[in-house]
Amino acid sequence: MPIEMPEHDSRFERGSRALAEIDGEAGERVVSALADIAPDFARYLVEFPFGDIYSRPGLDLRAREIATIAALTAMGNATPQLKVHIEGGLNVGLSRDEIVEIMMQMAVYAGFPAALNGLFAAKEVFDRRRV
Amino acid sequence: MPIEMPEHDSRFERGSRALAEIDGEAGERVVSALADIAPDFARYLVEFPFGDIYSRPGLDLRAREIATIAALTAMGNATPQLKVHIEGGLNVGLSRDEIVEIMMQMAVYAGFPAALNGLFAAKEVFDRRRV
Amino acid sequence: MPIEMPEHDSRFERGSRALAEIDGEAGERVVSALADIAPDFARYLVEFPFGDIYSRPGLDLRAREIATIAALTAMGNATPQLKVHIEGGLNVGLSRDEIVEIMMQMAVYAGFPAALNGLFAAKEVFDRRRV
Amino acid sequence: MPIEMPEHDSRFERGSRALAEIDGEAGERVVSALADIAPDFARYLVEFPFGDIYSRPGLDLRAREIATIAALTAMGNATPQLKVHIEGGLNVGLSRDEIVEIMMQMAVYAGFPAALNGLFAAKEVFDRRRV
Amino acid sequence: MPIEMPEHDSRFERGSRALAEIDGEAGERVVSALADIAPDFARYLVEFPFGDIYSRPGLDLRAREIATIAALTAMGNATPQLKVHIEGGLNVGLSRDEIVEIMMQMAVYAGFPAALNGLFAAKEVFDRRRV
Amino acid sequence: MPIEMPEHDSRFERGSRALAEIDGEAGERVVSALADIAPDFARYLVEFPFGDIYSRPGLDLRAREIATIAALTAMGNATPQLKVHIEGGLNVGLSRDEIVEIMMQMAVYAGFPAALNGLFAAKEVFDRRRV
Repeated sequence: MPIEMPEHDSRFERGSRALAEIDGEAGERVVSALADIAPDFARYLVEFPFGDIYSRPGLDLRAREIATIAALTAMGNATPQLKVHIEGGLNVGLSRDEIVEIMMQMAVYAGFPAALNGLFAAKEVFDRRRV
Repeated sequence: MPIEMPEHDSRFERGSRALAEIDGEAGERVVSALADIAPDFARYLVEFPFGDIYSRPGLDLRAREIATIAALTAMGNATPQLKVHIEGGLNVGLSRDEIVEIMMQMAVYAGFPAALNGLFAAKEVFDRRRV
Repeated sequence: MPIEMPEHDSRFERGSRALAEIDGEAGERVVSALADIAPDFARYLVEFPFGDIYSRPGLDLRAREIATIAALTAMGNATPQLKVHIEGGLNVGLSRDEIVEIMMQMAVYAGFPAALNGLFAAKEVFDRRRV
Repeated sequence: MPIEMPEHDSRFERGSRALAEIDGEAGERVVSALADIAPDFARYLVEFPFGDIYSRPGLDLRAREIATIAALTAMGNATPQLKVHIEGGLNVGLSRDEIVEIMMQMAVYAGFPAALNGLFAAKEVFDRRRV
Repeated sequence: MPIEMPEHDSRFERGSRALAEIDGEAGERVVSALADIAPDFARYLVEFPFGDIYSRPGLDLRAREIATIAALTAMGNATPQLKVHIEGGLNVGLSRDEIVEIMMQMAVYAGFPAALNGLFAAKEVFDRRRV
Repeated sequence: MPIEMPEHDSRFERGSRALAEIDGEAGERVVSALADIAPDFARYLVEFPFGDIYSRPGLDLRAREIATIAALTAMGNATPQLKVHIEGGLNVGLSRDEIVEIMMQMAVYAGFPAALNGLFAAKEVFDRRRV
């Protein structure tokens, strides 16, 4: 991973650990894909969302993934990131059924198409992970 | 509440209980405000979101409110409903600090303006409820 | 109305007639409000949407207002324009009840908050127009 | 179609008829695709949008499809559902040219990219249906 | 290009020149793709965005492409048009690095997924153009 | 400003200088308003958008404000932040007329309502600043 990593950068180290715990290989693939187009953005992605936000103690990772899956399903314009976080949700302890419940609920707030597209994204991830 | 209530309508009854538990008086105010413009929609609002979705056993109300607060903050175009669900979140056991965490996290997925406007909506609700 | 009007500009003339028929005084107020900030934009607004699009024969004004009211309710971030077109819908023959039906239907495609905010905008217009 | 169908459920029956009339086989395919990921959501989809909303007498199906096509084109993040409703519009009597008019009009409210993407989705459906 | 071109239509001529300068072949492909589905819309696309707006003297093309790339990245639901304007930006003098900066900045206003999807669209265009 | 400021935090210091240069008093007001609801978020707001992004050398502040004004106008759901950045644009050298051009151009990408609401926000800021 050819990202410049400043020495003693606790935000980057903390973020790398959080990213690995939540998104696993999928997170690593995103960071790698940025390497030749915007390596600084790969660093920011590790530092701010994961080093600053997901590492805060006030909300556990399970609750954080519920929030992210709900938001990305409702927004409906970020399918690749939604799939990464469906995997993330499974990684931090959400069940397949709980993820389905979140998406069904989004029909209320963002309409049936948003919920349907979320469910079909989930189906793809569940099939690949065989959960 | 001058809404026609079909006899033996368990979806409506179940929805009314869920709406009262989650949104309290704020939910009732929405239903009443619909009475003279779209009374059937008041009934649908009780029946589908609350009677069908929020009453499902697969996800507890705390998790459901995390999802709703996240989605409405990220979408950024439904401030009145966001405020109702900030109250709803407090009613079903989310702390002031947890709601703030959800909104801060939305900066990652929907940008800083969405997070800021969510935080200012929360401030208004917290001040009124003195939490 | 201090907007520069090119001589023999049939798009502008055609658009002015369509704007007057559809939006009445509300349309005029928008055009006037632009006079000192962006007079050219007032001209474009008359020419493209009203002179080009609404003046086309392929769809009647009733159908066009159904489309516009639906879209603005679903998008949820253009309340002033939605109110102008609720008035426009009434002006070209939609009934109060038909406008309410359109908004209720938007709950399916854009969620209940979008439908609710559309209904409350309609209520305001209906009360002012006493329909 | 392994969806549980409650006995005497008039909403489900009414919704199934409306779904068949409007969306034909495309609607059935959506319902089937949900069968193994979220069968309850397939039931809600039949019951609320089609059994409750599309079955209401206050607006004919032609007007309802104008509203839906407009909204989905403007939102721009639900292409699969837009295509289903372009088919639906043709099924309930909209002409190819009327659908094109709706999409061109959306340039005014949601911008040229939304209109272009709607037109290209329509082209695909028209080509497949040879209309 | 089988688009009807009115004689002496200076908006169309001016628009065609602007479209060619900014979007080059990519713009022509969009216009051609519209020829059999909505030829009038191809004309409007040349006339209003390019003949009216991009031809105005108050802002240079470099600044205009910064605005368009930023907006389309933030909206996140118009990837084909974003790619056309990434090419457009390169055509009017933006560097690869400046386009990357714009997209990174959009993380602040529309979230990290919008920025990531913009960066991956840019990567595709840069690879094809070998810049 | 009762925000905790870590010693030797060059991101925070750099961000504070950028925020002061771009947004002036309006930026300070946002930071202060966060003090009692989410002081950590005030720090993140200074550090990531202003310390990391706006402080990067690859794009000058004039170009950055063009991008931000365009994006917030197009998104249409963040009026308070749009007004702050209309001020920011004036502060870093954009003219009143250039800001109006950006907003007019957004009619092409996000529709006329988005452009109109942007223009009316600009009018308010221009009147207050007497530019």
